[in-house]
Amino acid sequence: MVPSSSINKVITCKAAVAWGAGEELVMEEVEVAPPQPHEIRLKVVCSSLCRSDLSAWETQAIFPRIFGHEASGIVESVGEGVTEFKDGDHVLTVFTGECMNCRQCKSNKSNVCSVLGLERRGLMHSDQKTRFSIKGKPVYHYCAVSSFSEYTVVHSGCAVKVDPLAPLEKICLLSCGVSAGLGAAWNVADVSRGSTVVIFGLGTLGLSVAQGAKLRGAARVIGVDINPEKALKAKDFGVDEFLNPEDFNEPIPQVIKKITDGGADYCFECVGDTGTVTTALQSCCDGWGLTVTLGVPKAKPEIAAHYGLLLTGRTLKGSMFGGWRPKSDLPSLVDKYLNKEIRVDEFITHNLPFEDINKAFHLMREGKCLRCVIHMPNQL
Amino acid sequence: MVPSSSINKVITCKAAVAWGAGEELVMEEVEVAPPQPHEIRLKVVCSSLCRSDLSAWETQAIFPRIFGHEASGIVESVGEGVTEFKDGDHVLTVFTGECMNCRQCKSNKSNVCSVLGLERRGLMHSDQKTRFSIKGKPVYHYCAVSSFSEYTVVHSGCAVKVDPLAPLEKICLLSCGVSAGLGAAWNVADVSRGSTVVIFGLGTLGLSVAQGAKLRGAARVIGVDINPEKALKAKDFGVDEFLNPEDFNEPIPQVIKKITDGGADYCFECVGDTGTVTTALQSCCDGWGLTVTLGVPKAKPEIAAHYGLLLTGRTLKGSMFGGWRPKSDLPSLVDKYLNKEIRVDEFITHNLPFEDINKAFHLMREGKCLRCVIHMPNQL
Repeated sequence: MVPSSSINKVITCKAAVAWGAGEELVMEEVEVAPPQPHEIRLKVVCSSLCRSDLSAWETQAIFPRIFGHEASGIVESVGEGVTEFKDGDHVLTVFTGECMNCRQCKSNKSNVCSVLGLERRGLMHSDQKTRFSIKGKPVYHYCAVSSFSEYTVVHSGCAVKVDPLAPLEKICLLSCGVSAGLGAAWNVADVSRGSTVVIFGLGTLGLSVAQGAKLRGAARVIGVDINPEKALKAKDFGVDEFLNPEDFNEPIPQVIKKITDGGADYCFECVGDTGTVTTALQSCCDGWGLTVTLGVPKAKPEIAAHYGLLLTGRTLKGSMFGGWRPKSDLPSLVDKYLNKEIRVDEFITHNLPFEDINKAFHLMREGKCLRCVIHMPNQL
Repeated sequence: MVPSSSINKVITCKAAVAWGAGEELVMEEVEVAPPQPHEIRLKVVCSSLCRSDLSAWETQAIFPRIFGHEASGIVESVGEGVTEFKDGDHVLTVFTGECMNCRQCKSNKSNVCSVLGLERRGLMHSDQKTRFSIKGKPVYHYCAVSSFSEYTVVHSGCAVKVDPLAPLEKICLLSCGVSAGLGAAWNVADVSRGSTVVIFGLGTLGLSVAQGAKLRGAARVIGVDINPEKALKAKDFGVDEFLNPEDFNEPIPQVIKKITDGGADYCFECVGDTGTVTTALQSCCDGWGLTVTLGVPKAKPEIAAHYGLLLTGRTLKGSMFGGWRPKSDLPSLVDKYLNKEIRVDEFITHNLPFEDINKAFHLMREGKCLRCVIHMPNQL
């Protein structure tokens, strides 16, 4: 399905390039170098816009850059030493890699690979260079994926093979947000039957937590968001009560403590705001209250917490991609989707062709979407 | 052993009264009222000085006050409705009560009683009055115990009956510090065999964590303290390596990361300093690093933590009295002591008569002691 003539050659294709913070993406012709050892080159099929793309685009300093990290694709060619993939394999991209060999990967209790984990400088692991260029000048990667391009190159530890029967235009959502939320509820918090759960921020991440909590038998899921439009969709995903902090005169932790007899069992911060982490910690109960922080803040990176909140038995825990070891665990989530055990399609509020990618950024910035799936041209 | 004539009468006895922050305690004649319903009056036998007494004495605003909360005693008389105790019973005092009936107590997963938990205003729970007075003027309680008095009155939920064969002059240490440290390692962190543990602050609390971690099979216990005199005693309690941050040019988290291949499995903050909580969090590893905060800071109550520390898989957890439910669990710790499964005597560096109580405060302030046991006069 990929012309064999392209193997080992530079591919020239379309990519949506960000030239500066917050500037509209520009559709450019880019050169995509062949994969180097232990890398694979993918034909991107679909890429859904995640809030991290938006935050990074708004705030980060590395440009020109190709964003996109929640994606599905088909292997076009593989670099030297790659035995796990062959051309034609269906894959999901993995923004936090799994090398399978470091202390973290071998621990069986971590998904924070110390070799391929969060790559932030926009360069490939092996040679600290880019595989993208425009007329020979480097264009930087994002999150080791850069899926807003018809073709991309990723480390073989940053992709996972999936069932070819799974619809790539849907399961791309499992590459980040939906899985991250489910995992936060299942793996990180280990939500228990009958519990009370409060979720701050009802985007895809928060609603995936809601789905996960309900599937675990949570008795009561309370959703908190300042956008009243979130209420309806939230109900669909199992949010029993919707609270808009702007509707109350007293601080939201006090409201929550009153209606939950002293605080929630679990709070999840899905906004990406460190102030909300503090609010979440204040909203969970003494003794065993657990706050899980999932969001990536774009400002004020320091979380502040009065020591008394911890001393009285609270726990603050971070969730990176819901605790899933991406290569080891993602195929089973795809299977759950195929078996209709988890819902994914319902998060897709918009389908857009690649050329309309800026619309997706606007929709997300305005809180008008859950997931916009961006369809690359000439798929399959 | 107590003259029956005292029952239901005011007892006049000696107490070490704090009249102002940081001022030497003054031995005064105080009146101790009879116990009210659900209260018991105790003849204090021994009281060991804990750092929380020192911190509260240095910083708190409620005076005159009788400090002391890590104590053993004998029931002198009981108030109406008390069926659990009778005069002559040997008890340990409990600074965080256990009412057995609230959401927290009934949860079986908390020791933060919402009825009798941390009492901070120096008054008795039932009527918000004091049981101590000097010439009719109230003298405030501390931590619901106030054991620096020959007699004291506590809520029946703030004492626990123990084996009368256990030496009260030793097991008073189990009333707070030693148990708190053991429990932090066992209940809160659940230290695993073969793990690496870093303890910040090598007082009684920190060394009890070390004892607990070693009993759980920790492979490597690293102790951090700026007082070089702590090194020798630390070794006795299982600290394998001693680090004095002042001996290094680079920040201690970097030192620890280097010698532990990326960070410790568990860090314990036993200083009572929120800055050290941050340091501890920075010193534990990605993926599963757990920081347990035990200390009570006397200044700067806000803990600050970069969100990235959590996002990469760390957990911050508070430990209140080591997670022990005091009335339910303390008798088993006394049994463990009697069976020589845990060491307590070795923490006692000084035994002082009651009249020398100020010496104990000085020794602790200067870092010259672990535990000073203060022996009340006319014991048994």
